[in-house]
Amino acid sequence: MQLSPAIQELIQALKVLPGVGPKSAQRMAFQLLERQREGAQRLAQALTQAVEKVGHCNDCRTLTESPQCVICAHPARQQSGMLCIVETPADVLAIEQTGQYQGRYFVLMGHLSPLDGIGPEDIGLDVLAQRLSSEAIQEIILATNPTVEGEATAHYIAELARQAHIKTSRIAHGVPVGGELEYVDQATLGHAFSGRKIIEAN
Amino acid sequence: MQLSPAIQELIQALKVLPGVGPKSAQRMAFQLLERQREGAQRLAQALTQAVEKVGHCNDCRTLTESPQCVICAHPARQQSGMLCIVETPADVLAIEQTGQYQGRYFVLMGHLSPLDGIGPEDIGLDVLAQRLSSEAIQEIILATNPTVEGEATAHYIAELARQAHIKTSRIAHGVPVGGELEYVDQATLGHAFSGRKIIEAN
Repeated sequence: MQLSPAIQELIQALKVLPGVGPKSAQRMAFQLLERQREGAQRLAQALTQAVEKVGHCNDCRTLTESPQCVICAHPARQQSGMLCIVETPADVLAIEQTGQYQGRYFVLMGHLSPLDGIGPEDIGLDVLAQRLSSEAIQEIILATNPTVEGEATAHYIAELARQAHIKTSRIAHGVPVGGELEYVDQATLGHAFSGRKIIEAN
Repeated sequence: MQLSPAIQELIQALKVLPGVGPKSAQRMAFQLLERQREGAQRLAQALTQAVEKVGHCNDCRTLTESPQCVICAHPARQQSGMLCIVETPADVLAIEQTGQYQGRYFVLMGHLSPLDGIGPEDIGLDVLAQRLSSEAIQEIILATNPTVEGEATAHYIAELARQAHIKTSRIAHGVPVGGELEYVDQATLGHAFSGRKIIEAN
């Protein structure tokens, strides 16, 4: 049996969403058409609006509607002299939710991946190098993902920072809070030991 | 940190999809804006098109673009004299994929649920009663879901069919093919025993 073309096209189009396969796309399409027609229209408008309006911040490359994002435009953050390098805008959100960091960000929108043809310029490292030489940055915090590609990217940026004589740090790896040692992998536990902190006696 | 309004609106709008919560919606929004802008535009168009064009079949109430769906318009199926009652268009697809059934369908688009205020007319049982009296239907197959509401709905329709003197059957409940008895629930296993078939000797 053939579904009508508009439904088929909707199912195909829904498969662009991450984690949505043919079965979920079909379920979503039927759900929208049966019970959520207003929601579907609102989604269509939101998609069109977002694609039209949202671009990248000129300073940090994150997704934003204005030429400069809220964080880059914040005076206190501009004077902090801290720059945190992350892979995605979602990482910025996650770090902001900790409330621990009051500096600015630089969002790579990916990581170095020579096999996929993603080189330094594709993740904005030319822009970053320029910022390092022109701005008064005291410290760079490397917060790329602790994956092979993320580590390689961090390594590359650390080298850039060394050439510009800027202090560079990497976020700590270790045992996650609330986790159990028994279930932590070897590499993480290794990092937790090598990065151990001395408990100061009173 | 506040995301820009267009991104926030997109995340809100994505939550209308079944099975998508705040975290998935955020991931989808970033993925679309970072890497799938064309896909997002295509999805917006597909949604608008589908909401505009797709309505219900006049005969069987399934989702379709034309006044009569492909199955209802099929001459051989019209002459089959069989009518299968299902809850959703997805059920029609599932039954069609078996290739076992060559009759027509009636899609309730839901089930009787007095607590939610869904009565017989909300699931088109008035239309169905009219069809039962005006058309030459030899058999009704009740293929509503084997849930409490589905069974109640099947019971109600069986009564309608009895009044119209039409033979009515319910799809078989039993052990799923490829399943293991150990993991089958009591009710299903009970049905499998009460619905057992005699193996004919040669």
